Amino acid sequence: MSKVMSAAEAVADIGDGASLGVAGFGVSHRYPSTLITALRDLGPTGLTVYCNGLGQPGFPTAHLLADNHQIGHLVTCFSARPGVVSEAEKQIEAGEMTLEMVAQGTLVERMRAGGAGIPAFYTPTGYGSSLAEGKDVRYFDGRPYVLERAITTDFALIRAARADEMGNLVFRGGSQNFNTSFAKAARVTIVEAEEIVPTGTIASSEVDLPGVFVTRVVPVTVRMDVKNLPMRVNRAADSARLYLGKPALTREEIGRRVAALMPDGAVVNLGAGLPTQVANFIADRPVILHSENGMLNYGSFVRGDDFDPDLHDAGGYFVTLRDGASFFDSVTSFEIARGGRLYAVVLGTYQVGGNGDLANWSVPGMIGGGIGGAMDLAAGARNVFAMLEHTDSRGRPKLVEKCSFPLTAPGCVDAIITDLALLRRPSRSSRFVLEEIAAGFTVDEVLSLTGMTVDVADAVGVLQECWM
Amino acid sequence: MSKVMSAAEAVADIGDGASLGVAGFGVSHRYPSTLITALRDLGPTGLTVYCNGLGQPGFPTAHLLADNHQIGHLVTCFSARPGVVSEAEKQIEAGEMTLEMVAQGTLVERMRAGGAGIPAFYTPTGYGSSLAEGKDVRYFDGRPYVLERAITTDFALIRAARADEMGNLVFRGGSQNFNTSFAKAARVTIVEAEEIVPTGTIASSEVDLPGVFVTRVVPVTVRMDVKNLPMRVNRAADSARLYLGKPALTREEIGRRVAALMPDGAVVNLGAGLPTQVANFIADRPVILHSENGMLNYGSFVRGDDFDPDLHDAGGYFVTLRDGASFFDSVTSFEIARGGRLYAVVLGTYQVGGNGDLANWSVPGMIGGGIGGAMDLAAGARNVFAMLEHTDSRGRPKLVEKCSFPLTAPGCVDAIITDLALLRRPSRSSRFVLEEIAAGFTVDEVLSLTGMTVDVADAVGVLQECWM
Repeated sequence: MSKVMSAAEAVADIGDGASLGVAGFGVSHRYPSTLITALRDLGPTGLTVYCNGLGQPGFPTAHLLADNHQIGHLVTCFSARPGVVSEAEKQIEAGEMTLEMVAQGTLVERMRAGGAGIPAFYTPTGYGSSLAEGKDVRYFDGRPYVLERAITTDFALIRAARADEMGNLVFRGGSQNFNTSFAKAARVTIVEAEEIVPTGTIASSEVDLPGVFVTRVVPVTVRMDVKNLPMRVNRAADSARLYLGKPALTREEIGRRVAALMPDGAVVNLGAGLPTQVANFIADRPVILHSENGMLNYGSFVRGDDFDPDLHDAGGYFVTLRDGASFFDSVTSFEIARGGRLYAVVLGTYQVGGNGDLANWSVPGMIGGGIGGAMDLAAGARNVFAMLEHTDSRGRPKLVEKCSFPLTAPGCVDAIITDLALLRRPSRSSRFVLEEIAAGFTVDEVLSLTGMTVDVADAVGVLQECWM
Repeated sequence: MSKVMSAAEAVADIGDGASLGVAGFGVSHRYPSTLITALRDLGPTGLTVYCNGLGQPGFPTAHLLADNHQIGHLVTCFSARPGVVSEAEKQIEAGEMTLEMVAQGTLVERMRAGGAGIPAFYTPTGYGSSLAEGKDVRYFDGRPYVLERAITTDFALIRAARADEMGNLVFRGGSQNFNTSFAKAARVTIVEAEEIVPTGTIASSEVDLPGVFVTRVVPVTVRMDVKNLPMRVNRAADSARLYLGKPALTREEIGRRVAALMPDGAVVNLGAGLPTQVANFIADRPVILHSENGMLNYGSFVRGDDFDPDLHDAGGYFVTLRDGASFFDSVTSFEIARGGRLYAVVLGTYQVGGNGDLANWSVPGMIGGGIGGAMDLAAGARNVFAMLEHTDSRGRPKLVEKCSFPLTAPGCVDAIITDLALLRRPSRSSRFVLEEIAAGFTVDEVLSLTGMTVDVADAVGVLQECWM
């Protein structure tokens, strides 16, 4: 009863118009590259593809399928990245491919529901955003929720570290992410595994995904070399912008101030970009970092080549582990987020509204955007911190009366930390209060760069003096 | 940041009227007995208790709380067992305790939803039964589903094999069952663990439940001695009833016939009671047995003392494992069932209706009944086999035109196997067809003991000749 076969055999019945989930997480190199390559070679067209993102263009990620004009409909959390115009974006713009944006936690929950025989569920994620348009909204206990339908697919292409001949799977580190839920949602699940062992070799207690969810097992033959991945440009931590001719806080200093706002014992999620600066200032404190791909209690960033390829955060940075770290899949990861177990999420953002609206996933003119886990995190975390530069590159305020960019979540922001100011509010129905400003600036100067109406604290502190 | 404390400290803030999930599975001895005993000693009353069942009366199970008149409202899958009248049943009958029956898969899914920030979901389970009364029903893709609300609780009492000081947990074998979902649903989760180790001792890949879901950790000090548990009366496999003065099939022979109906590769769930007879006839075949408490590919029953206390099926029988076995929690277990991954479920039953209605959880006069996983399994398995004696002990047909007992699921039965006959039907809108009868009986004799209208096959086979 062995399920092992070649990649070509495993994908042979994926025909024109089939639907499939393609696992893989962001800038990670752990894509089912062997199966994607075989499917590219087979060449079926008009595919409906569900994925977190297409992956890195130019590598054996789901981009191969887009480049080969095989995708008719794309359902994804990331359709566009600043500075990159992919083949997929061109096809979307030309109307050759249709696009459906979905929040990351909602995508895995819909997949998991499809696999669990649950046809639909209510979620707080996406309420108040364009993603909720046309969907049923219902109030439970006074709070609005959006009805989301389950997803089932014809096929899933996933990747595991180990498989036995019955299809029992073991994942490594943070690489479980979407694989489990995508496997559950599919009628036919095809896994590629680094190592394939005889049934009975994997201890029952080690199995991460039982073989009942796996149809075919294929050995990995196509790999992405992680060393060839373009490292993402990370702006120097010690860079500081000038406002009115004077230097504001450095990126590192903003991170340090945010870290000091996290109490001991807090479970915290740090978004991509600027928020990653926070990690290094809590590495030696009892603050637990959570990552959407499925890790708790990771440590600091690995800057050199001494990394474990399966230990990376949701932004794709390689990280260390601390004692008591644990791994899980993205479904569990968003249970933690939506279920209120996060003390805080720190999110980079394009705009914050005076009423706490958050807009961080798309800008006008973008083909879709990049939602990632932000909508789920904003809906679920007990405290939402917006961390951003005070104005955009042309000097226009990013703290605005009312957001002009598409909303991530309405009224969710509890605190704003910029390179010029810290603002908090006593409740989600209150105005923001300017509590601290950067050294060398006056309250009036900061207010002149601020587009929202705020209250000013009786005693305004200095940002640099308020970290521990 | 250690979460370790004594049982008395851990339960000290559970006050009158608190809600709590109490983990533990059926006749297993793996209850959070230490915490239950401490809570009994503390004595808060008017508790709302969620549990699969109260456990074995007379042992440190949730029965302790009922016996001490601490439960005001009981939400459970098993409220009554034939031949046992518990203190809880007396209190329910007297109106001192209110009772809410729930299907097992729905209970863990509601708990999991509560922990995941999902306020409500639709499920096929329970549709057409009294449990769906008063709940919203909605059709998706032409099939009816019931809206179920999430459950959150003030506390959860759970049990693990190992814990570290941060509350990362490891379960053993089939003992994960309800613990994970109950932990997620609770504001304060208290675990008792057989072994408590320093943080960092449990490998990240071994963690079954991350410490973010666990509030307090307590060492196990009160255990149930499994050897003192009354063994359930299991009627001799070679007993055969007499009908019209002639012996029908033995219990073992019915099991053998059902086993022969399962194709190689099938994933099968065997209900409690008579269906357990099937297991021994597929032990050396590539048929995979599934158990609600969270096991796949278990083997035959262990009759003597050489058992592993964490390896038992949903009926509480100790079992062996086969190569490729895997463990998981009850949420995953019912994903497998509702998601259509089971080729078949074999259920014992009180009655089957001519239209395929199944009635196997309660009889008139019972205080509630015993639902277990039957409603979920009946709603999700691709083939539902009803396995029963042909008449009740007073000779009245159990195959009836219309069920008089409360329904488990409407129109779900695909095949009926009794000690006198095998009946199948070509589709769920067809009548049952009498295909085989027991040796020594005539078709007319079998029909005279049958209360539903059936078709008779052109060539009726002999049951004993049709097994492999």
